[in-house]
Amino acid sequence: MKKMCVDINLIGLGTVGRGVYELITNKNKEINEKTGLEIGIYGVCEKNKKILKEINISQNIKIIDIKSASKRCDIVVELIGGLDTAYDIVSNALNNKKYVVTANKALLAERGEELFDLAFKNDVEIRYEASVAGGIPILKSIREGLIANDITEIYGIINGTTNYILTRMEKEEMDFDKALKLAQNNGFAEADPSLDINGIDSAHKAVLLGGLVYQSIIPFNDVYIEGISNITLQDIKYAFEMGFRVKLIATIKRIVDKIDIRVHPALVPINHPLSNIPDEYNGIFLKGDAVSEQLYYGKGAGRYPAASAVVADVVDLAKKIVYREKLPKNIKKRYIKKAVFAVDDIYCSYFLKFITLDRPLVLAKISRILGINDVSIASVIQKEVNNPKGVPIVILTHKANERRVKEALKEIDKLSIIKAKSSLIRILE
Amino acid sequence: MKKMCVDINLIGLGTVGRGVYELITNKNKEINEKTGLEIGIYGVCEKNKKILKEINISQNIKIIDIKSASKRCDIVVELIGGLDTAYDIVSNALNNKKYVVTANKALLAERGEELFDLAFKNDVEIRYEASVAGGIPILKSIREGLIANDITEIYGIINGTTNYILTRMEKEEMDFDKALKLAQNNGFAEADPSLDINGIDSAHKAVLLGGLVYQSIIPFNDVYIEGISNITLQDIKYAFEMGFRVKLIATIKRIVDKIDIRVHPALVPINHPLSNIPDEYNGIFLKGDAVSEQLYYGKGAGRYPAASAVVADVVDLAKKIVYREKLPKNIKKRYIKKAVFAVDDIYCSYFLKFITLDRPLVLAKISRILGINDVSIASVIQKEVNNPKGVPIVILTHKANERRVKEALKEIDKLSIIKAKSSLIRILE
Repeated sequence: MKKMCVDINLIGLGTVGRGVYELITNKNKEINEKTGLEIGIYGVCEKNKKILKEINISQNIKIIDIKSASKRCDIVVELIGGLDTAYDIVSNALNNKKYVVTANKALLAERGEELFDLAFKNDVEIRYEASVAGGIPILKSIREGLIANDITEIYGIINGTTNYILTRMEKEEMDFDKALKLAQNNGFAEADPSLDINGIDSAHKAVLLGGLVYQSIIPFNDVYIEGISNITLQDIKYAFEMGFRVKLIATIKRIVDKIDIRVHPALVPINHPLSNIPDEYNGIFLKGDAVSEQLYYGKGAGRYPAASAVVADVVDLAKKIVYREKLPKNIKKRYIKKAVFAVDDIYCSYFLKFITLDRPLVLAKISRILGINDVSIASVIQKEVNNPKGVPIVILTHKANERRVKEALKEIDKLSIIKAKSSLIRILE
Repeated sequence: MKKMCVDINLIGLGTVGRGVYELITNKNKEINEKTGLEIGIYGVCEKNKKILKEINISQNIKIIDIKSASKRCDIVVELIGGLDTAYDIVSNALNNKKYVVTANKALLAERGEELFDLAFKNDVEIRYEASVAGGIPILKSIREGLIANDITEIYGIINGTTNYILTRMEKEEMDFDKALKLAQNNGFAEADPSLDINGIDSAHKAVLLGGLVYQSIIPFNDVYIEGISNITLQDIKYAFEMGFRVKLIATIKRIVDKIDIRVHPALVPINHPLSNIPDEYNGIFLKGDAVSEQLYYGKGAGRYPAASAVVADVVDLAKKIVYREKLPKNIKKRYIKKAVFAVDDIYCSYFLKFITLDRPLVLAKISRILGINDVSIASVIQKEVNNPKGVPIVILTHKANERRVKEALKEIDKLSIIKAKSSLIRILE
């Protein structure tokens, strides 16, 4: 009879690692009943001795050091995060022909090419469900559940921190700084929130999603990334009045042989499923040629949601190990580098905001320059008058080319009637 | 090297079968690139000769009859629907140790016990992703993606026809009959819509979902089922005013060793994710102890969404066949019969509607009887006066026991001030 036992080494017992330790320890019986597999922990590695004591690690489990991370196990579970040590652990594991599970989006987004290559060469796999949208099994759904689909578009709210902030700004009419503080106080933003706020975390995840969907390596440095720190309460109010919510959206689409992949705030129509993803939740909206539109919604972070995804990956790989499931060697290498479609080349509709002097012909001057650049106006809101700080004019455009929109804004900003740099927010299709 | 070819017999080329034929034919290359597998169609079986001609079946594929359904293939894909012939095809396939993929919810909900048993005995499997929520990979997500979770509750909108009708009733202020006609005209309801309207289709799917989640066989005949044909436009309007939408909800919860499983219209709070599932879409909301709340949203029916799920099942089983992935024989039998929790024993909040004479003390009399039965009132709406047909009084209750609520209604209906049978709609927790 087949040996159904698979051992893991658990590297890092922080938030997620501890959750994985608990789930594997507490759910072993249920997992065995469902799959026949015995998942064992051979060793755990954690530099913080206090954590090791707190958890009260079972005596059967070895406390190992980082150098032994891939010894005496079938799967290495890397949960220390960061780039350098994590890279060493993962590459070392792959070179030792160990399967790897990780939640490290930064590592895979920035150094995925080398690591996926190494996995391919060593005939093993890296799984990373927890690194995108936490507990939502979106990678499994794309890889297996939707295997008969060409996934033509993905729009994702894949960062809980920024979604929490934008939700609070709208619901409680707070400005950005106050909402960020609130997020920090409630544990939804880190002390240094820059990776989240600036859109980088979302971009890491987008690169992993896009890579899986289009079987490719997407150069992270080519991804257009814009965060939410310039979004004002005023923007959110104007947008809402026009029928939209402001969300930080990761867009992933194929345009011929390139990938249109970008992260930026976007106006989402109020009746669109993504507009109803509140607080720290994540939501991934996709279109497949067979299934049409789908939405996946859930918690994108936190100890147990992420640990749930890690354990599911471990169980999947354990099956592959036990049943010797390997891709046939004649199959073509699966990850090919794809070029990114330049953001200046996209066509979309825009929310444009101008801070102007309250003078006659202001709108005429602005719309003339927009028109010359083939940017046509869908609607305009101008409400305040006589504000010495300037009167905001908000314009929604029809679809236009981003390069031309930016050229128009640059020209408009030279007008003497303009009091501050004009801004744009893209509108979700 | 492993033989990576797996052959299917495709039984039934109706709406879904034809979609499966097209997807397997057109996506063969992509599936092979992703998995290394070659999925071939050995034979197709379709009694309607016109369809065979229309599709222009490839010459490599045999036209087979039902008796040969499980010959010369690895997987039998049953897509003819119905109970009797389908039962013969599936049981015959299992007895011949063939894996089975089906979209036949009625068959598995009503005769699942025998069929799952047969699969277990013959060391093969039945897959049925397409039978619940069409293109949404909800069974895969529960079985694999959420394997580390105890799923404590599921609330599903899993019938597109009824959701379309309820959406139209609300948005266009139509009555039920008109909305049903519209659904039929637009292809969202069948000529005989009774299985959908009466909640039976949802109950079939609920039994399959619940069976998977709780590793059990749920006796279909014990499931409480109530359809939507008694829902009036007035109910929908009152509910909306009180902050709810009316949806046909399948509830699946474990209560100690029983399963609380039922299908009935329910008031869903407007800010609940299920309340925003519009038109013919399906939505499944679940709570897992690790992942917390999740929602899966997409098309629950239609040729390609269902075919997408069938093909994903075929690919999954093909892997199992190629890699000889079998559950170890010492694993306990997986499907155990579970008892259903009686609907009269549930506690929930209720929307109660009374049609009364406009007399003094009406509300006092009603609320006295409710109070005696431990049903306490959360809010009341009484708007019309002097309507000779009767004045509706709508009451939302706090949590109460269903048996007591029904007893109260029975007693209230004996009052001379009551003009019509009083009604209840349960409120989603």
